[in-house]
Amino acid sequence: MFELMLGRMGEFDLIETFFKRPARHATLGVGDDCALLAVPTGQQLAISSDMLVEGRHFLSTVSPRHLGHKALAVNLSDLAACGARPKAFLLALALPELVPHWLSEFSQGLWDLADAHQCDLIGGDTTRGPLNICITVLGEVSAAQALLRSGAQVGDDIYVSGTLGDARLALEVFRGHLEVPSAVFDAARLRMEMPTPRIALGLALRGLATSAADISDGFLGDLQHILKASGVGATIETASVAATLASAKNCHLPLSTQLNLTLAGGDDYELVFTAPEGLRSAVTAAAMASGTSVSRVGRITGSCDLILLDSEGNHMANHFQSFDHFKTP
Amino acid sequence: MFELMLGRMGEFDLIETFFKRPARHATLGVGDDCALLAVPTGQQLAISSDMLVEGRHFLSTVSPRHLGHKALAVNLSDLAACGARPKAFLLALALPELVPHWLSEFSQGLWDLADAHQCDLIGGDTTRGPLNICITVLGEVSAAQALLRSGAQVGDDIYVSGTLGDARLALEVFRGHLEVPSAVFDAARLRMEMPTPRIALGLALRGLATSAADISDGFLGDLQHILKASGVGATIETASVAATLASAKNCHLPLSTQLNLTLAGGDDYELVFTAPEGLRSAVTAAAMASGTSVSRVGRITGSCDLILLDSEGNHMANHFQSFDHFKTP
Repeated sequence: MFELMLGRMGEFDLIETFFKRPARHATLGVGDDCALLAVPTGQQLAISSDMLVEGRHFLSTVSPRHLGHKALAVNLSDLAACGARPKAFLLALALPELVPHWLSEFSQGLWDLADAHQCDLIGGDTTRGPLNICITVLGEVSAAQALLRSGAQVGDDIYVSGTLGDARLALEVFRGHLEVPSAVFDAARLRMEMPTPRIALGLALRGLATSAADISDGFLGDLQHILKASGVGATIETASVAATLASAKNCHLPLSTQLNLTLAGGDDYELVFTAPEGLRSAVTAAAMASGTSVSRVGRITGSCDLILLDSEGNHMANHFQSFDHFKTP
Repeated sequence: MFELMLGRMGEFDLIETFFKRPARHATLGVGDDCALLAVPTGQQLAISSDMLVEGRHFLSTVSPRHLGHKALAVNLSDLAACGARPKAFLLALALPELVPHWLSEFSQGLWDLADAHQCDLIGGDTTRGPLNICITVLGEVSAAQALLRSGAQVGDDIYVSGTLGDARLALEVFRGHLEVPSAVFDAARLRMEMPTPRIALGLALRGLATSAADISDGFLGDLQHILKASGVGATIETASVAATLASAKNCHLPLSTQLNLTLAGGDDYELVFTAPEGLRSAVTAAAMASGTSVSRVGRITGSCDLILLDSEGNHMANHFQSFDHFKTP
């Protein structure tokens, strides 16, 4: 296929055909050595890069359209965790071959999500190589309002957005470790392949949340980043976390499986955040305004320990391993 | 090696050990969901991403220290072409295995060049996968001073910085297509593995150059980007371009080889730029002030053609193919 395309399409044609559109936010978009971006006075730029590799971040079975969505979604999720408003992104893409249908579908998945967030593609790079997608997103947030990992206070409530564990459930079905009804699998697979970045919630939490992080490597692991950065501990009601698993509403899963999937599943792209107890109704209002469910799952403590409680209030051993892109098979 | 390291070093340790240092320009560096960057009033952000893949952008024989240098250098070269001052960069890295010595050397190559340009590592990503290095650089330039590809004017002189063709010469020696004395090869190999981004020249050319681009895919190909963006043509004195080849000063190379290497070599990371004839002495002064040689090699014309002249002023056929990351073997 690659050889077949060679005579007709090179690197520059490829960029022109699939990835060049007028930019809304950038002074200068795709096609110069750099993109130029103006940042309004009083705003800071929030920036994040995520790299996606087959077998690590997506399976070979994913459709190119879903992959285009996911590659941008996981990056937007980092902006959501900072309370930043998306403005622009750069796409670097290594492809083993040039397949127009694949590129067309992949770019459509990207555009659909980018348009939903008014986020412009302003630059990037393409090369031949093992499939690799690296996106850098840029958003705006005022200096005083950025949500950081370091602001959690003793006594704060701990929340998670949306549903946890469904993406990992789909992965475990793919791996042959779990069996679920096909309708449950289909829904879970969509959560794995087309996560929803919680941009609206992140924006609504500015001024309310004392800290936030996105849940990409597993709830407990990402919570630990907040605890470490804030120098605090936490008590977690594990049953409240397990209850977020959407798949469990439509099929029976043992509690131990629900706990594993939700506490340490990975690939959720939900937010974990903290807010003062006195702001509970404001948090509920922010969740409703942004159309995102949130669940209160624990509390920040002054110790440096992470304590897990079962549904009867007893301590549980923390044997849950967060996802590590080098440690997992 | 990877298995051996697993018990001791995961993704987060890796980031902490080799890639975390205090940031100078960013409010918030490596370790939160996003980095936060303030942009001074009146300045725009210049942004570029480049992805490096083994066999395309570097050979397996490159030392990790040189590779760290090159990965950042090719990105800084894009800032140079815009006349932007480097501020920060993000590093996304896919590695087949975790080898501490490799990481230590790679990061040292990065830091040495980053420090030379006061450019902070503010974020990024690491994952396991086929070796892939994706860097996004951020620089500052005032809106009125950014060097674009689109500003070339009829009658402007065309210049190139430094030396062209030596990186390609080294590649052709590696491929067994050329033989040169070992001292010539060693020098050319350094040009291939440790290119010098022309940041100082780019800054000095603000207000003088009417257009600029970096030469990464070959002089004629990158010049064409300027011609197309500016809607102009050019006449090139090919002997003046060939004369920039440093290797030719220390060994005999046929003129046809010199022309191939300099006109369409690729991997040079020099600048091609245009400036009005009346500013020749100012361009010379800018080159001297920035410690970078520049050569005048042609002139912008009102036609849309690119005309190549030999040393006697006769037209030459343009059979030179610029480097395309999808088309070359």
